[in-house]
Amino acid sequence: MAANELARDIASAAPGLAARYRAVREASLRLAAPLETEDYVVQSMPDVSPAKWHLAHTSWFFEQFLLRPRLEGYRVFHPRYEYLFNSYYEAVGPRHARPERGLLTRPTVAQILRYRAHVDEHMLQLLGGIEPGQGLVALVELGMNHEQQHQELMLTDIKHVLSCNPLEPAYRDDLRASPGPRSAGPVTWTSFDGGLVEIGTDVGAHFCFDNETPRHSVWLEPFALADRPVTNAEYVEFIRDGGYEHPAHWLSDGWATVRQEGWRHPLYWSDGLDSQFTLGGRRELDPTAPVCHLSLYEAHAFASWAGARLPTEAEWERAAAGQPLQGNFVDSGRLEPCAAPDSGGGLRQLYGDVWEWTGSAYAAYPGFRPAAGAIGEYNGKFMCSQLVLRGGSCATPADHVRPTYRNFFYPHSRWQFTGVRLARDGIR
Amino acid sequence: MAANELARDIASAAPGLAARYRAVREASLRLAAPLETEDYVVQSMPDVSPAKWHLAHTSWFFEQFLLRPRLEGYRVFHPRYEYLFNSYYEAVGPRHARPERGLLTRPTVAQILRYRAHVDEHMLQLLGGIEPGQGLVALVELGMNHEQQHQELMLTDIKHVLSCNPLEPAYRDDLRASPGPRSAGPVTWTSFDGGLVEIGTDVGAHFCFDNETPRHSVWLEPFALADRPVTNAEYVEFIRDGGYEHPAHWLSDGWATVRQEGWRHPLYWSDGLDSQFTLGGRRELDPTAPVCHLSLYEAHAFASWAGARLPTEAEWERAAAGQPLQGNFVDSGRLEPCAAPDSGGGLRQLYGDVWEWTGSAYAAYPGFRPAAGAIGEYNGKFMCSQLVLRGGSCATPADHVRPTYRNFFYPHSRWQFTGVRLARDGIR
Amino acid sequence: MAANELARDIASAAPGLAARYRAVREASLRLAAPLETEDYVVQSMPDVSPAKWHLAHTSWFFEQFLLRPRLEGYRVFHPRYEYLFNSYYEAVGPRHARPERGLLTRPTVAQILRYRAHVDEHMLQLLGGIEPGQGLVALVELGMNHEQQHQELMLTDIKHVLSCNPLEPAYRDDLRASPGPRSAGPVTWTSFDGGLVEIGTDVGAHFCFDNETPRHSVWLEPFALADRPVTNAEYVEFIRDGGYEHPAHWLSDGWATVRQEGWRHPLYWSDGLDSQFTLGGRRELDPTAPVCHLSLYEAHAFASWAGARLPTEAEWERAAAGQPLQGNFVDSGRLEPCAAPDSGGGLRQLYGDVWEWTGSAYAAYPGFRPAAGAIGEYNGKFMCSQLVLRGGSCATPADHVRPTYRNFFYPHSRWQFTGVRLARDGIR
Amino acid sequence: MAANELARDIASAAPGLAARYRAVREASLRLAAPLETEDYVVQSMPDVSPAKWHLAHTSWFFEQFLLRPRLEGYRVFHPRYEYLFNSYYEAVGPRHARPERGLLTRPTVAQILRYRAHVDEHMLQLLGGIEPGQGLVALVELGMNHEQQHQELMLTDIKHVLSCNPLEPAYRDDLRASPGPRSAGPVTWTSFDGGLVEIGTDVGAHFCFDNETPRHSVWLEPFALADRPVTNAEYVEFIRDGGYEHPAHWLSDGWATVRQEGWRHPLYWSDGLDSQFTLGGRRELDPTAPVCHLSLYEAHAFASWAGARLPTEAEWERAAAGQPLQGNFVDSGRLEPCAAPDSGGGLRQLYGDVWEWTGSAYAAYPGFRPAAGAIGEYNGKFMCSQLVLRGGSCATPADHVRPTYRNFFYPHSRWQFTGVRLARDGIR
Repeated sequence: MAANELARDIASAAPGLAARYRAVREASLRLAAPLETEDYVVQSMPDVSPAKWHLAHTSWFFEQFLLRPRLEGYRVFHPRYEYLFNSYYEAVGPRHARPERGLLTRPTVAQILRYRAHVDEHMLQLLGGIEPGQGLVALVELGMNHEQQHQELMLTDIKHVLSCNPLEPAYRDDLRASPGPRSAGPVTWTSFDGGLVEIGTDVGAHFCFDNETPRHSVWLEPFALADRPVTNAEYVEFIRDGGYEHPAHWLSDGWATVRQEGWRHPLYWSDGLDSQFTLGGRRELDPTAPVCHLSLYEAHAFASWAGARLPTEAEWERAAAGQPLQGNFVDSGRLEPCAAPDSGGGLRQLYGDVWEWTGSAYAAYPGFRPAAGAIGEYNGKFMCSQLVLRGGSCATPADHVRPTYRNFFYPHSRWQFTGVRLARDGIR
Repeated sequence: MAANELARDIASAAPGLAARYRAVREASLRLAAPLETEDYVVQSMPDVSPAKWHLAHTSWFFEQFLLRPRLEGYRVFHPRYEYLFNSYYEAVGPRHARPERGLLTRPTVAQILRYRAHVDEHMLQLLGGIEPGQGLVALVELGMNHEQQHQELMLTDIKHVLSCNPLEPAYRDDLRASPGPRSAGPVTWTSFDGGLVEIGTDVGAHFCFDNETPRHSVWLEPFALADRPVTNAEYVEFIRDGGYEHPAHWLSDGWATVRQEGWRHPLYWSDGLDSQFTLGGRRELDPTAPVCHLSLYEAHAFASWAGARLPTEAEWERAAAGQPLQGNFVDSGRLEPCAAPDSGGGLRQLYGDVWEWTGSAYAAYPGFRPAAGAIGEYNGKFMCSQLVLRGGSCATPADHVRPTYRNFFYPHSRWQFTGVRLARDGIR
Repeated sequence: MAANELARDIASAAPGLAARYRAVREASLRLAAPLETEDYVVQSMPDVSPAKWHLAHTSWFFEQFLLRPRLEGYRVFHPRYEYLFNSYYEAVGPRHARPERGLLTRPTVAQILRYRAHVDEHMLQLLGGIEPGQGLVALVELGMNHEQQHQELMLTDIKHVLSCNPLEPAYRDDLRASPGPRSAGPVTWTSFDGGLVEIGTDVGAHFCFDNETPRHSVWLEPFALADRPVTNAEYVEFIRDGGYEHPAHWLSDGWATVRQEGWRHPLYWSDGLDSQFTLGGRRELDPTAPVCHLSLYEAHAFASWAGARLPTEAEWERAAAGQPLQGNFVDSGRLEPCAAPDSGGGLRQLYGDVWEWTGSAYAAYPGFRPAAGAIGEYNGKFMCSQLVLRGGSCATPADHVRPTYRNFFYPHSRWQFTGVRLARDGIR
Repeated sequence: MAANELARDIASAAPGLAARYRAVREASLRLAAPLETEDYVVQSMPDVSPAKWHLAHTSWFFEQFLLRPRLEGYRVFHPRYEYLFNSYYEAVGPRHARPERGLLTRPTVAQILRYRAHVDEHMLQLLGGIEPGQGLVALVELGMNHEQQHQELMLTDIKHVLSCNPLEPAYRDDLRASPGPRSAGPVTWTSFDGGLVEIGTDVGAHFCFDNETPRHSVWLEPFALADRPVTNAEYVEFIRDGGYEHPAHWLSDGWATVRQEGWRHPLYWSDGLDSQFTLGGRRELDPTAPVCHLSLYEAHAFASWAGARLPTEAEWERAAAGQPLQGNFVDSGRLEPCAAPDSGGGLRQLYGDVWEWTGSAYAAYPGFRPAAGAIGEYNGKFMCSQLVLRGGSCATPADHVRPTYRNFFYPHSRWQFTGVRLARDGIR
């Protein structure tokens, strides 16, 4: 949550807020629309949640943190939904075990849609009455950003679910591949001076998650960043050079995972390295598109093989300063990473297409204070054993991401749209 | 399958056969009718299959073993269904892994219903043209009995799925409990002489599974059998006497399972021992009804505690000889075991209500020959580490069971309608 | 234990008893003599116990069931040994978990040898004073037979431990292979009539385990038995014919095990099928020797492939009636199964060489009563999911086995000296 | 390893080097001396290695990286030891699986001592002939520091092994507790300004591991550090306040671990919170001694409960600058953390007693380059999912640790001598 120092509450935000609330909530339904009823139910691995769970949980979030405490006379839609749709808030109380979300055939999709309508009706009632100083706007913003995170998860999760089916059904049959240019061109490098930089943000005019705060200084050595993420063609070269057969370039944990899981290529790729499963079904591999669905281990091994390294999150944020916030987001409707547009030499694709693994462990910034109460569990308690990713992906809403935005996953995770941009030490 | 010696093929069976085929197939749909679309999808543990998988697999059985080899010009409904809906026939080819049946959101329920209609249409075409000597009748009978087995599994599986939901949804809201008399009365014992008896059956006028053949002699010592299965009230007494707290009466594997799984009572019971989850939702425990959802381990421990033992399957079959084949089957619509009707002292509830665990390992009868080809895998390859149960349950179709019918499950299995009837050694 | 009806107690047994007690106890030490101190410690899998555990547990058995209750003034050697060396007697009390036996570096081997001496000293004192009617002889006999069982286990366990070492150390360097004749000769079959036979034994003049009682009738159909166990050469033929590659001949659980464990041949064999690890180190495979270290699954699959089946234990015992109790036991010092001696056509190698899997589930004989108290746990509580083996092995003491002797293991177990003799249905 | 840029090689180091080599090697044997032969064999969990493995592996290190490539005519002691005693060097070749080190009864302890003597003899020969420019000194230094690391592991590993034994044998019976003062006194805080600091070291006059290089700048915010580690008494207070019962202060992964493992207190503590298992056997808990055998999760939860946080490694190193390198190391012979000496207000116990968890993920310093070849695997490939600990423990050799020394373990690890010193944000 926007940190607890957030004192002021912009009253004038309320009218626009209701419209934005509606837009965010409708976007979730739009993403779910192509699904068959059966598709909403399945949890293909513990990391994945059923689509209907996402639709319900995001509604529960508003009910739990806004309607129950703040809307007078509000009655919960169903007394057991708190148990079923609380994700991980220990302070709220006991809840359905995460790996068992896929056991729930009820509530049905229809019932969950009624739940959403019920929550929306009351949220709009609440939003209509917001007055300055109530501290509500930040919570509503949090709820909307939370819902946007689940929009991305809904896509990555259903992609995983459908990929487990030998029939390889497409999420949407009308998606079309956007093949890139014949060649993505060789990587070029942009150099940055070292020195003291500021990263992160303070609570202020615009929304941010608490893990982005406070703004603080970091000392950087000179470094260089590749102009674009690694492409499928480059990654195929790594594989063909024995990338998955020799431990030389792998982290110890990474190599153990490769052996245990039998990894031979990124998630969703065919063994022949020529096609991949996408939300549009199986498609030919586009050599010019950013390689995607990499674990941190694979990103690290590739970088080592290429004589480079992963950027730190401070380097990434330093490089992103002043760059336009544009890219291939969910709004483009492509739902797959695409080849980089030509940019005349500067950094490309910092935003959108693929989340870029950094070498930075996800940790508290100096001076970080989690919010009080259950909301304090939103980010802080995950600050261990995960790594930061930056820039958003083709499944991220365009208005959801920021230069200071910190996504985080475990190093073995591959089912998100995750890729890699190389970095190098500069000349000191 | 009716053993391969089956030479004759009753042509006149064909017209009646088509009607019975229709009836069996419709019964499956009738059992599925109360389900929501979401209910058809979930696999709550590896033993359980999704309802839509049952509907598809039983259709595949007819397609694979009758339509493909025997109906000229038949084209399979979908080329991948053989892979998806083959259960365990190694001779047919590779197939979708059993524990992953719940990952399949497609084909949808609607598509599977179309598959059923397609198979039915062609089966009726095939049945219309059956001529003597084709050897088809036995296969059709096998397919229908196979479908009836899956009808029972569909009920036990959906019961398990719904029980995993904290909302405890009922399979049918209109099921009503049939409370028994105030007391089931004390157990009475029926004694049987020892000596040479014949059990099992030979292939002949009526259908049987191959594992019931051949008819053969068994030497029995004198024994006595309880007039009715153990009741809930009796089992509560065992629990209250520390049944699940002391290892004294348990098989070694059973006690290990009790400790590992934390069992304190039969499956579906409340910890307070006063209610149980049923296909009609949560209900008060009927003290007079047969205790149900016991593992072999629990059945054995109870019998030992009660100073008795489990019957052998030969004892059970000897006792069942000449008894009327009637009881509380799926046809009664109760879908739960009920208190025994008064019988004036003889054996009661041999059939229906609960499958009765025997102490007999599931093994080949002397002279047993499995059928040739894939059909030979139907029963024979499971003859290890399982135990025989007899008599059918409240989820078994009345015309499916026989005195010689051998059901079999692993000793830890509890999700079937399984109970226990006590036996004792007689006086030699 | 000799069943609890055992009334009489042969006073004159006492003097001979002490001598036999001494002999049995010394035999254990003789088997342990070739071990290095380090060899005594390791538990290579949960089924295996460290050699020093065997030496201590067998002593504990005498201390627990004889010295403590029967020798006035006896003080236990160490108050915690009851906890450490109780194997599975729930009635005795809590105990060290079986899979953690290999975590105990103390007591040291030297301390355990002192424990043995302490127990022996007091046991001889007790044996010196045995008078008629005390019921002690049966318990002493049980303890000695128990120790003999652990002598065999000590050999099979240390064989497994040493086999896990890439250095493949020999248990004894001075063991020499006893290569058989060039060919074991083709199998010949001995036929037996069907009819009523008696198997098992009653408590009487000689010792038996309770699971062998009571003597009772069994009806047999005519059958035939191979004159000798299956040889290595015959088993190689099965493997070369794709035995481990196709599921056709396997039980369902067996095939699942083959896939999961990656079995390609019997335990201890080289992948090239030309050598095997033995207690004398790695040795060339003797084609004429009985194949050994088979699971029940492999025994069953071979039999099915060969167009035969496993014998039942009643068939085996019927065939063994009147055969001389001789064979390649531990007393021969070979410690490996050897080729069958020529026998002029009759049954060979019924005893010794390899335990022969039967198709009979290990279950209570009709009228079986386990002993009262902790001793009742000796056999009875294991009567589930295991199968009976007959005849003893090259690691069994010659005076330990009997025609009625029932050994039992789980179907996946392979680390005992287990082989297979084929059976066939006879002509009815 | 000292990074590969190490150009110069101090010839004059050689004579002193031989003496130090001898001293380090003898120290290992001295630590092993109290063990029984049986104690050398057991691996109580995958993280633990048997004592004899440590003695052999450290010898293999010298053989592999010095004797084989650099001593002309050297013949390895045993051709399979490379396979058995290579720990994790992928570039060296295949090796015995880590979790199976406890399966090896051979080579015996006596054989491994001969191996050590063989290596020592040839190492001293090699050291006698070292000439400038050979680049050998750095490798020998690495080998000695490597051996010192295993000396500490030998102690922590045997402590774990002995703790698994219900007899709770002591590693040494002659160790005496050193009870601290009645009270450790309240914590005092030392404040540090923020600003640019330098941490790490460059390769130079003294030995360092490659992960400590290069020296580089870090920007720090003002902070304060507790004068001493958290004590047992303070930790008991945390437990009594429900520390292990409520998730509020735990990292998400930490709480999951607490629940799964059933943790109620630090490793080796009694459930009554009044005693702990030590290398001297079970002892009363000293309230004034630093709490020890904490996971990172527990360290973090305590800090959060106390309103503080863990220091970063840069903060720790900044605070340690200029502090005397003294403390309770293995050389004191206490082998347990002890109460802090009074220090008149400054920082105490920075070195020795307990490794102090930092909140810093173990990662490459900016500009880090691992060494070429197998030696490059020494540290670099572990830079993921582990956290840095600082300062050494009561099991660390005094001349092994440095202000820049980085130890690292996974957040769940507790079997090392690990504790926690609190930090706080300063006033900006």
